[in-house]
Amino acid sequence: MGGDFGPHVTVPAALAVLSEQSDLRLILVGDQGTLEQELAKHPGDAGGRLVLHHASQQVAMNEAPSSALRGKKDSSMRVAINLVREGAASACVSAGNTGALMAISRFVLKTLPGIERPAIVSTIPSMTGHTHMLDLGANVDSSAEHLFQFAIMGSVLASAVDSVPRPSVGLLNIGEEEIKGNERVKEAARMLEESDINYAGFVEGDDIYKGTVDVVVCDGFVGNVALKTSEGVARMITQFMREEFMRNPVTKLAAAVSKPVLNALKERIDPRKYNGASFIGLQGIVIKSHGGADVLSFSTAIREAVLEVEKDVPRLIGSQLEALFMNRGSA
Amino acid sequence: MGGDFGPHVTVPAALAVLSEQSDLRLILVGDQGTLEQELAKHPGDAGGRLVLHHASQQVAMNEAPSSALRGKKDSSMRVAINLVREGAASACVSAGNTGALMAISRFVLKTLPGIERPAIVSTIPSMTGHTHMLDLGANVDSSAEHLFQFAIMGSVLASAVDSVPRPSVGLLNIGEEEIKGNERVKEAARMLEESDINYAGFVEGDDIYKGTVDVVVCDGFVGNVALKTSEGVARMITQFMREEFMRNPVTKLAAAVSKPVLNALKERIDPRKYNGASFIGLQGIVIKSHGGADVLSFSTAIREAVLEVEKDVPRLIGSQLEALFMNRGSA
Repeated sequence: MGGDFGPHVTVPAALAVLSEQSDLRLILVGDQGTLEQELAKHPGDAGGRLVLHHASQQVAMNEAPSSALRGKKDSSMRVAINLVREGAASACVSAGNTGALMAISRFVLKTLPGIERPAIVSTIPSMTGHTHMLDLGANVDSSAEHLFQFAIMGSVLASAVDSVPRPSVGLLNIGEEEIKGNERVKEAARMLEESDINYAGFVEGDDIYKGTVDVVVCDGFVGNVALKTSEGVARMITQFMREEFMRNPVTKLAAAVSKPVLNALKERIDPRKYNGASFIGLQGIVIKSHGGADVLSFSTAIREAVLEVEKDVPRLIGSQLEALFMNRGSA
Repeated sequence: MGGDFGPHVTVPAALAVLSEQSDLRLILVGDQGTLEQELAKHPGDAGGRLVLHHASQQVAMNEAPSSALRGKKDSSMRVAINLVREGAASACVSAGNTGALMAISRFVLKTLPGIERPAIVSTIPSMTGHTHMLDLGANVDSSAEHLFQFAIMGSVLASAVDSVPRPSVGLLNIGEEEIKGNERVKEAARMLEESDINYAGFVEGDDIYKGTVDVVVCDGFVGNVALKTSEGVARMITQFMREEFMRNPVTKLAAAVSKPVLNALKERIDPRKYNGASFIGLQGIVIKSHGGADVLSFSTAIREAVLEVEKDVPRLIGSQLEALFMNRGSA
C-alpha cells in the first residue's frame, strides 16, 4: 500500500511481474476495497497467482518508526512482514516509510545470529556494470566489527544475485596522505585481510562508479551521504543538459537530432533499473523500494525480491556467519 | 614546483594571472635553473612582478608528510610557506602532496587560536551557483565542537569571497527515519542554533548540488567521500554520453550537430573552474590546487589566493573565533 503513490503503482507493477514469471505468486496486503478497485482497472487474469490480504491500517510516510511499531499492529507493512515470519510469504516488498519498515522488520523477523543491526544494501550503476554498496543508512558510527559483517553480507549477496563465486570487496576510505582513513576502517581492513573474503583493499568514492570492486563497504552515514550526493550530481548534470539544449532554436534542433542518443543515455543511468534496496542480516527477505517509485521502478524491486528468494540469501548469509563464529570460537 | 606537471603548468599559469592583475606580484619557488628554462619559453615581461626564489629540494607526490616535514627543510613547499610566515608572501599556492602541504602549513604557520586542526574547504558547482563545503579530508571523526568551528570558518570564508553578509550554513546529515544522523551532528546543530551563524538546519547529500545553502559542513571523511563520489558520477555520465554519441554514424552526426551544446555543458561543470581548496584555520593563506591541474585550473587556484588575500580571510576568521571564545569565557 505504501510509497508516495500507493496501489496506483504497486498493483500494476505486481501484475506486470506476474505476467513475466509464471511460477510467481504475489499477495497484495492493504485495504481490500482499495485494492479491488485498483485491480478492476486492470482487466486480465493472474490465474489465481494474485491474492489480496486485508490490513486495516497504514503507516504514514512521515510517521515515527516507534509509533508505527507500537500503534499499528494491523498496518499493511506489519501484516506483510508477519506473513514472511509465518512462512506464508517468502519476501516482503514495500515502498513505504524506511524507518518504520526497518523497525518492524527487526522486531518481527529478528536479525540473524551474531548480527546486531541489519544493513541496507543496494545496486549502483558503474562504468563496468554495477556495484553493490552497503551500509546505506541503517547504521551510523559503525565499528570495525560492523564493517566486517557488512563485508560478509555484501559478499554473499553479490555472489548469489550475480552468480560470481568470490566477489571482490573494497573498504571505502579517503586517500588524503596525512590521514589515510580512520581507525575503525583500518581495523576492519586488518580483519578482512585475515578472512576468507576476497578483500581488495581500500577504495575511494570514485571507485564506486569505476566498478573497481564488486562490493563497497562503508558506514551507513557515509554511504547514505555518498548515495544522495550521487543523485544530486546526476540531477544537476541532467538539468544543465536540458537547459543547454533548450537555450535557443539552434540548440533545440540539436536536441531533436540527438533525441535517440539522449534517450539511450537516460536509460543507461535510469535509477528505476536499480530500485530495490535489501535489508540484509534479517531472518527473512525485505526489499525497500524508493518511495517515489513508478510502475517500472517498483517492478524492479519485486524482481530483486524474487531473485533473493530463489538464491535463499538469508540462509547463505546465516551459514557464512555461523562458520565465522565457529572459527572464532575454536581459535 | 609541485603537482603532476610541475613548472610546465605553474609557470604559464602564473604569467596568465599576472597579465590579468596589474598590481599582483608572484614569487615562483623551486629549482632556479628549471624555472628559468621554463620562463624562457614564454617571452614577455611581467614588469618585475615575477620573482624567482631558489629551493634545492622537492617533496614527492607520494612522500610521507612526516618525511617531507623533517627531512626536506629546503623543499619548494617549505620555502614557500616560510615566505608566508615571514610576510614576504601573502599566500602560498601549491599543486603538490596534500598531506605534506598540510603538515608543513600547520608546523610553520600554526593554527589560529582555538583551532586544533585546519580544515579543507572548496567551492562546488550547484544548480543555483556554487556551494562552499568543508571539511574535505583534513579531519576524521570530527567532534561537535570541530563541526561548529568548521561552520564558523566556512561562514566567514563564504561571506568574504562571495560578498554575502550572512551566508546560510547547513549541517550534512542523513534522513533515514530511524536514525536521523549521529550524536555529534545533533550536538553541533544545538550549538549552531544558539550561535550568531545563519544556521539553516540539516541538509542531505543532494542539497550540496541543489544549492540549498551557501555552506555545507561535515566531517572530513564524509566530505572527502562525497567529493570523490561526485567526481566518479560525473565521469561516468560523461563517459556514457561519449559512448552513446560515438555508437554509430547516425549518433556521430548527432554529436557533430550538438557539439556547441555539449561544449557549453562541459564548460558549465568544468572542475577546472572550481580548482583551489583552501586550508582554513591557519595563520596564513594556503591554497591547494589539484595535483593534475592544467594551466587554466592552476590559474583558478592563484585567483582564489588573491581573493582571500584581498579579503584578509585569516584575520576575519580569527576575530570571529576570538569573539566566540570571549562570549564563552564570560558565559
